[in-house]
Amino acid sequence: MDTKQIAQRLVDLCRAGKNDEAHDTLYSSDIVSTEASSPPGMPAETKGMEAIRRKGEWWVQNHEIHSATAKGPFTLGDRFAVLFQYDVTPKMGPGGGKRMQMEEVALYTVKDGKIVREEFMY
Amino acid sequence: MDTKQIAQRLVDLCRAGKNDEAHDTLYSSDIVSTEASSPPGMPAETKGMEAIRRKGEWWVQNHEIHSATAKGPFTLGDRFAVLFQYDVTPKMGPGGGKRMQMEEVALYTVKDGKIVREEFMY
Repeated sequence: MDTKQIAQRLVDLCRAGKNDEAHDTLYSSDIVSTEASSPPGMPAETKGMEAIRRKGEWWVQNHEIHSATAKGPFTLGDRFAVLFQYDVTPKMGPGGGKRMQMEEVALYTVKDGKIVREEFMY
Repeated sequence: MDTKQIAQRLVDLCRAGKNDEAHDTLYSSDIVSTEASSPPGMPAETKGMEAIRRKGEWWVQNHEIHSATAKGPFTLGDRFAVLFQYDVTPKMGPGGGKRMQMEEVALYTVKDGKIVREEFMY
């Protein structure tokens, strides 16, 4: 698959709530994931599939997700961007129990047919 | 100004239709601008302020712009993204006279307090 096909497949899987399948089939095992900021005790940059899975589990376990939408993909060369919009209630922490709307731009880099980098901008 | 301040200022000026002022005050004279694709006869990558201005003029002269909105900015380190949504009618070309909605993610890189790179993803 080329970058446009990978980008569309990622968006389709995220829209279907199949984030794990997206990781398993589209990500390189050397994936690097970077966040604009990170919760206490969690690094802003993680590496490898196991770290990505743990981050995904943390997100699901710590938020009640009312809805999640994905806009895009927007492609340029070997990179693409997706705008994610979430309607969630964090289960704990400073905003715990308070329903909120969040938006982020995820920027992905593809190499040799796999996503090797994801960066979350907000 | 730091990256977040530059990002917010750019969005504010674009929303006010003051793109020229954004270029004059926030851009480095060595700005590099990259498009995911480009019209016939126009390069995908341009360099320098004069090229940026010509591109902006081309856009305004060749489109009737009914509305333009900017969502963001979304920041990560020395980069930020903005989602632009346009409601336009191209004046000529294959889609000439046909009103259309366009979206793009613009990705900006800041160095030494100025925007040195803009990349348009679609």
